[in-house]
Amino acid sequence: MKTGKDYLTSLRDGRKVYVHGARVDDVTIAPGLREPAEEIARGYDRFFDPAPGAYHPMFEVPRSAEDLRARIKMVFEADFTAFNSAACLALLGARGALRAADPVYVERIERFVARCRAEDVRIAEVISDAKGDRSLPPSRQADPDAYLRVVERRSDGVVVNGAKLHITAAPFVHELVVMPTKRMKAGDEDYTIAFSIPANAPGISMVTVTHAPRGDDVRHFPVSRRYAIPQAMVVFDHVFVPDDAIFLNGEIELSAAIAHSLGLWERLSGLAQMAEHADMLTGLAHLISEANGVSRAPHVADIIAHMAMYATITRANLEASLTQAEITEDGMAKPNELYVNAGKYYAASEYVLMVRHLHDVAGASVVTSPTMADLDNPDIGPFVEKYMKGAQGFESAHRMALFHAIRDLTADVLAGWHLGSNISAGGGLMAQRLVTRNQYDMQAADRLGWSAAGLAPGADG
Amino acid sequence: MKTGKDYLTSLRDGRKVYVHGARVDDVTIAPGLREPAEEIARGYDRFFDPAPGAYHPMFEVPRSAEDLRARIKMVFEADFTAFNSAACLALLGARGALRAADPVYVERIERFVARCRAEDVRIAEVISDAKGDRSLPPSRQADPDAYLRVVERRSDGVVVNGAKLHITAAPFVHELVVMPTKRMKAGDEDYTIAFSIPANAPGISMVTVTHAPRGDDVRHFPVSRRYAIPQAMVVFDHVFVPDDAIFLNGEIELSAAIAHSLGLWERLSGLAQMAEHADMLTGLAHLISEANGVSRAPHVADIIAHMAMYATITRANLEASLTQAEITEDGMAKPNELYVNAGKYYAASEYVLMVRHLHDVAGASVVTSPTMADLDNPDIGPFVEKYMKGAQGFESAHRMALFHAIRDLTADVLAGWHLGSNISAGGGLMAQRLVTRNQYDMQAADRLGWSAAGLAPGADG
Amino acid sequence: MKTGKDYLTSLRDGRKVYVHGARVDDVTIAPGLREPAEEIARGYDRFFDPAPGAYHPMFEVPRSAEDLRARIKMVFEADFTAFNSAACLALLGARGALRAADPVYVERIERFVARCRAEDVRIAEVISDAKGDRSLPPSRQADPDAYLRVVERRSDGVVVNGAKLHITAAPFVHELVVMPTKRMKAGDEDYTIAFSIPANAPGISMVTVTHAPRGDDVRHFPVSRRYAIPQAMVVFDHVFVPDDAIFLNGEIELSAAIAHSLGLWERLSGLAQMAEHADMLTGLAHLISEANGVSRAPHVADIIAHMAMYATITRANLEASLTQAEITEDGMAKPNELYVNAGKYYAASEYVLMVRHLHDVAGASVVTSPTMADLDNPDIGPFVEKYMKGAQGFESAHRMALFHAIRDLTADVLAGWHLGSNISAGGGLMAQRLVTRNQYDMQAADRLGWSAAGLAPGADG
Amino acid sequence: MKTGKDYLTSLRDGRKVYVHGARVDDVTIAPGLREPAEEIARGYDRFFDPAPGAYHPMFEVPRSAEDLRARIKMVFEADFTAFNSAACLALLGARGALRAADPVYVERIERFVARCRAEDVRIAEVISDAKGDRSLPPSRQADPDAYLRVVERRSDGVVVNGAKLHITAAPFVHELVVMPTKRMKAGDEDYTIAFSIPANAPGISMVTVTHAPRGDDVRHFPVSRRYAIPQAMVVFDHVFVPDDAIFLNGEIELSAAIAHSLGLWERLSGLAQMAEHADMLTGLAHLISEANGVSRAPHVADIIAHMAMYATITRANLEASLTQAEITEDGMAKPNELYVNAGKYYAASEYVLMVRHLHDVAGASVVTSPTMADLDNPDIGPFVEKYMKGAQGFESAHRMALFHAIRDLTADVLAGWHLGSNISAGGGLMAQRLVTRNQYDMQAADRLGWSAAGLAPGADG
Repeated sequence: MKTGKDYLTSLRDGRKVYVHGARVDDVTIAPGLREPAEEIARGYDRFFDPAPGAYHPMFEVPRSAEDLRARIKMVFEADFTAFNSAACLALLGARGALRAADPVYVERIERFVARCRAEDVRIAEVISDAKGDRSLPPSRQADPDAYLRVVERRSDGVVVNGAKLHITAAPFVHELVVMPTKRMKAGDEDYTIAFSIPANAPGISMVTVTHAPRGDDVRHFPVSRRYAIPQAMVVFDHVFVPDDAIFLNGEIELSAAIAHSLGLWERLSGLAQMAEHADMLTGLAHLISEANGVSRAPHVADIIAHMAMYATITRANLEASLTQAEITEDGMAKPNELYVNAGKYYAASEYVLMVRHLHDVAGASVVTSPTMADLDNPDIGPFVEKYMKGAQGFESAHRMALFHAIRDLTADVLAGWHLGSNISAGGGLMAQRLVTRNQYDMQAADRLGWSAAGLAPGADG
Repeated sequence: MKTGKDYLTSLRDGRKVYVHGARVDDVTIAPGLREPAEEIARGYDRFFDPAPGAYHPMFEVPRSAEDLRARIKMVFEADFTAFNSAACLALLGARGALRAADPVYVERIERFVARCRAEDVRIAEVISDAKGDRSLPPSRQADPDAYLRVVERRSDGVVVNGAKLHITAAPFVHELVVMPTKRMKAGDEDYTIAFSIPANAPGISMVTVTHAPRGDDVRHFPVSRRYAIPQAMVVFDHVFVPDDAIFLNGEIELSAAIAHSLGLWERLSGLAQMAEHADMLTGLAHLISEANGVSRAPHVADIIAHMAMYATITRANLEASLTQAEITEDGMAKPNELYVNAGKYYAASEYVLMVRHLHDVAGASVVTSPTMADLDNPDIGPFVEKYMKGAQGFESAHRMALFHAIRDLTADVLAGWHLGSNISAGGGLMAQRLVTRNQYDMQAADRLGWSAAGLAPGADG
Repeated sequence: MKTGKDYLTSLRDGRKVYVHGARVDDVTIAPGLREPAEEIARGYDRFFDPAPGAYHPMFEVPRSAEDLRARIKMVFEADFTAFNSAACLALLGARGALRAADPVYVERIERFVARCRAEDVRIAEVISDAKGDRSLPPSRQADPDAYLRVVERRSDGVVVNGAKLHITAAPFVHELVVMPTKRMKAGDEDYTIAFSIPANAPGISMVTVTHAPRGDDVRHFPVSRRYAIPQAMVVFDHVFVPDDAIFLNGEIELSAAIAHSLGLWERLSGLAQMAEHADMLTGLAHLISEANGVSRAPHVADIIAHMAMYATITRANLEASLTQAEITEDGMAKPNELYVNAGKYYAASEYVLMVRHLHDVAGASVVTSPTMADLDNPDIGPFVEKYMKGAQGFESAHRMALFHAIRDLTADVLAGWHLGSNISAGGGLMAQRLVTRNQYDMQAADRLGWSAAGLAPGADG
Repeated sequence: MKTGKDYLTSLRDGRKVYVHGARVDDVTIAPGLREPAEEIARGYDRFFDPAPGAYHPMFEVPRSAEDLRARIKMVFEADFTAFNSAACLALLGARGALRAADPVYVERIERFVARCRAEDVRIAEVISDAKGDRSLPPSRQADPDAYLRVVERRSDGVVVNGAKLHITAAPFVHELVVMPTKRMKAGDEDYTIAFSIPANAPGISMVTVTHAPRGDDVRHFPVSRRYAIPQAMVVFDHVFVPDDAIFLNGEIELSAAIAHSLGLWERLSGLAQMAEHADMLTGLAHLISEANGVSRAPHVADIIAHMAMYATITRANLEASLTQAEITEDGMAKPNELYVNAGKYYAASEYVLMVRHLHDVAGASVVTSPTMADLDNPDIGPFVEKYMKGAQGFESAHRMALFHAIRDLTADVLAGWHLGSNISAGGGLMAQRLVTRNQYDMQAADRLGWSAAGLAPGADG
């Protein structure tokens, strides 16, 4: 296994990363990137085990509901690239489908996953294409590269062009797991390509945006100073992919298999995070209501009850998705797709109301509280201390820290990223409605409907 | 065990039942009461087992999540008084608390439950008091009987006065299980009384309302002709209760123990029924969209997806409440109170939107469809047949039956009862918010809140 | 002008009306129909003026926002067929479009409206076709009569076949104003037919449903005993329409003109009724909270504030639709279509939550309160009186009457009709969203969007 | 009237302003403050009129609904301190109440307003106190200065201590209009003090927070680079207020009069801004859907229709508040309080859903789009240009500018400020519900309720 130091060293591999228009030579020291790199390094150290054969639990294949539960707990304790390790599970989960097309894909996948585990590497899930005009299919775009595609076929591999958007943590991983974004049709064979590729492979560039705090004083950003994860547009400019790294190549009927498999794990992660987040926001609402001295006001208590309700319903869906997990023929436990989707939908679509509730409880100081630097200033500090005092027992500095945490989580840069990505992750709210509709047992519902009408099931239609 | 015929015979026991101002001599033949009585009788027959010692599964004590799941399934297959058997579970579940007060209560409860099981009797849950002015406690009401109370204490029992409202199926049961409606305070000792009493005991009258179809043609009411369950105001006018039937007598600190225990089971029933109902309404929306030929219209498909989402989230809460069940010291499995409440709240508060969705999909024929009698009429029938035709493959009569089922369930007498009782059952939406707030692990949430602020848990407050 | 007696006499004209499978010989005496007929007759008498040339204000053409406001007030004071008189306004409002096609249509419309006014007749708006398979256009239906159409053209008129659904008050009017339900396409000329026809014309039958109280004791139905308006499927079986009564005949490009014109007035009526209804439900919530003694409970006061909010927002839309009325070239004031639609949408889609709020405030007695007949019963009446008592100052009988009103309005037969028709009137919620989208000034919104992006309006796209 | 240059000069008056812990010597050049100062200066120039006696229209007293409408239009064209000029209207609007207490207050107010107009000064509304423990009244706080109060009374004025929070634009104005935050009780006389004071008066310090863009490249912040308005905690440390500037002094029964009067104008501003904002967000959703090529996808079109609905309903409330304005005895037009509050509540409480809709339409590039600097980079720029291309006719740079505008408005620093302040402005959602409840005509609603129950109004209660 790698130590944190090994990890940081490994990132100095010539990768081409750009931030706000400028090339970054070393992601481990550049402002806005250094902090997340160090956060991941600390994660490596927390899980480091010098024993030979030891590996990070993110590479453990879950075989039961309990394993799934353990995995979720682990992900919160590990660094945030642990979410991405779901790409390995997705590849393994797609084996059933891929085996039929060509058993060699399965062998390559198993080799790739074994290598990731052995070398303790971090990976990124690389899916969304640029898409150009979304009303047109890949093969009818004005620019044929709007979806990533094979532009040249060689004896030992393929060459690809294209760009993948919204790639979480891309500048911090070793391997990119690339797959088609959706179901392809006849004529889209060149767009039907899945593979792994090192992040520093020739022809790859990463245009990165960060949601890291933009100010100097990290005390103003108690959450985002630790958890702002960059995203990148990953550009593929004539990138060579050797055969051994290819997991799918032209089989249009399987084009969506890996992405679909991954979608499930991504939404599970999203759901688990939102369940945790829901508890955190509820706790902040409760604490600030006490700091303000309003926790017993009926309308405040009732808003907090609404928040606890949201948190509980979100968690109920997570629970149901685990205990109703499906065990595949390979013995892998897959969370229940129906509950994962419904839960992710509920949590994401109601999340904005949680933000509103929290702001309603906390008041305007969420966005107007003085900073810790104001508190330090010898002239004005004593006044800030005096007037930011709330209910007895709460220090002004602590009350201010709560306001800053609330602002940082729900009314600032990282907050914006949460709002935007909660909705977009997994393809927008419509996508979750579609999956729920497809996974829902409509035949059973129809039977109840016929029965209500006093008719035999399937009387018509 | 009793047969259906035994059951009907047993109801002719002199009980005093009134409907719409008139005394009913025999509930097994009176219009509006005969139908539910026969429905229960059929339930007896479905579960009849002549073997000695056989008993109805509604009296089985659940000991695991699986038992709870089986119990829910059984309740849907049995007659609707099976819900009420939860009163036995509630009494058994309160033993822990009552044992401390007086072990004799526990003995009486166990004897009572054993007798119910042996004699295959049906029971009612008798809780809500008349309450008078709700802003005042029992002992300060203008009429001291506004809450049921002991008006006389004798050597062998007590005499009670009062009225209990909204008692489901009261005219159809053998035993009433009576308990205080809420936590009592010092001075309320006479109001702290729980007991069982036969439905035909002297001094008991039942003022009954039905939501049975008010028309002659039951084809117009495919659902309510079977499932309209009467409720009654049960009046206690100097009713003698022997000591052996008393389960609580003056211990104000335990006054809410049985009702609280029962509340959990009632909300579980409510949640399970609403989960079933949600699937049924979704099925009806789907079927009528096909009958109308609009199932592929995007906005219709999307509404149905919303309905499937509601059904799934409701069921996720039910699932979580079962798999996270608590096993009591007596070995009884109690569903998880947090998930039961949150689920019941979600389902009840969003239910009205399901009704709206269903009406939006089905269209105005829900409330204007001709009747089956119109179809039978030789003059007008052929026109009704001709013009109520929808998409190919659906007979007019079937499409009309679907409209009638939707109306009966969501836009007619029984529908009104669903709307009203969904909200009120378990004490109104506020009650569920309160219980959720109390059961929610706020300390864990607070810890996440402190952590977000970068402070040690419990830094203040 | 007609007196109420004149009106009742005029209904005995041989019209063919069916209810629940049976022909009704005289709608003025048949149970379920007599009550609404008498309600309309009383409306005639309230507005009767023996002066020559006097006419009912429902035939007044509004020329200003104030006239529109006066019209709304009048409609609530008149009988409920006053809503239908909007068909005259719709015909007059469509003159601009029809004049271009053929001036004779305008002359016929003006003659028809003048005759309605002079003879004080009542009319019905006859629009929705049977529609068969809704995924198919009129000319591709399995049954060509699925949309009403001309089956024969004669020298002096046309013969039509078809059925029109959901026709409010049809059995109680003198004239049916029939129009196509939607925009027709080339080949649909025979479906493009608008006309007036007497309700007793040969070949017309009306299959009627009522939402009148189904019980004997009207005290149990304080609202619906007065306001249950029957709907009918109106069947046209080879009905001859003379030329002079035809307002549109084959001009497919104008097929939707009258219905669109009428839709605006229908939605205005719907919006005005829902505004009134909203105040009524808020008042009932407030009164029952006082009767129950809970009006000061914070969560109850807050629910009532939510209801007042809904009522106010609904009324704000009504206000805006009146004060922003458009004056046509003919000098007629038309309510603002954007606000009418948005308001109708808001009110209809949130209405179900008002019902939930009211039930949440009122409690389970909404569906379980004893009847007035129970109160009259000498045995049980005193107990009902004693135990239905609420807060001081409220008589039991009055508190019960409030419960009955709430049930009748929101949890019984008429309530179901409200729920269903609120949503379906005006074509379902999607229809209102479409109209709002079309009427909304998207170009102005786009300009603001471009400006936010720092770009010139219309930079692209 | 002042020019922009005059204005900037006038701000260099020794005022004590702190930002992030450091004293700012000159607010017209400090980063984060310079930009808004210049924005205001441009506003001065736009309205400059050299004619003697000319004055800014923000000081015009509205006398009709049309004047109110004109005022709203003017505010959007003027600089953002125009909102604050409502403090003058609020003072004038409170004259009726204050005249009874002491006519001298009225004279001082009129002199103050005349001076503001003559000298073209900008003012701030200074209301919210620090409040300490919100469960306690002013006089029972641990720190008696938790609410601003008179600490010394002199022959020619008073000396005050305290702090006022969330003071919009405070560092940019000339005069602070200070008033009590709420209704005071007996014993709170020293807290009942209203006055005006120059922003640079001895003893005043302003602890300022900005929501200005934190990055260097303003192209990334097309909205906030212009509209980020700082807020300040304004500290009063033994500030002397001369008699002539005092508008209220100890009359506890009038303590809330000015704040109440101001609240109405503040909420009107909030409502007008949210109506404008709603159109802007709808326009952005529409434009980005076209840029993405998805504007014809049914679910996208439907989301945009929902947004247009929100914008329309918000505007309907604004319209109704203007056309139903009340004309005071002084001839001033006051917007209708009921509609202002209901509208502000609706707009603020549903706003978060607008943000969700916009994110759902726009997709993840809202938070991951590369910057304009990336587009400028010679290495990576061509790829950004190539892959950020959307539907034909949209330049990549324009599509990116739309994403940046959406992020800046709804998913970044300024966005957070909008979310937080929308809810908190005017006192939280509960405050609007309370005002609506108080202003709503409950007696009229009760009459409808009694009537529904078939009873005479006021039968009981």
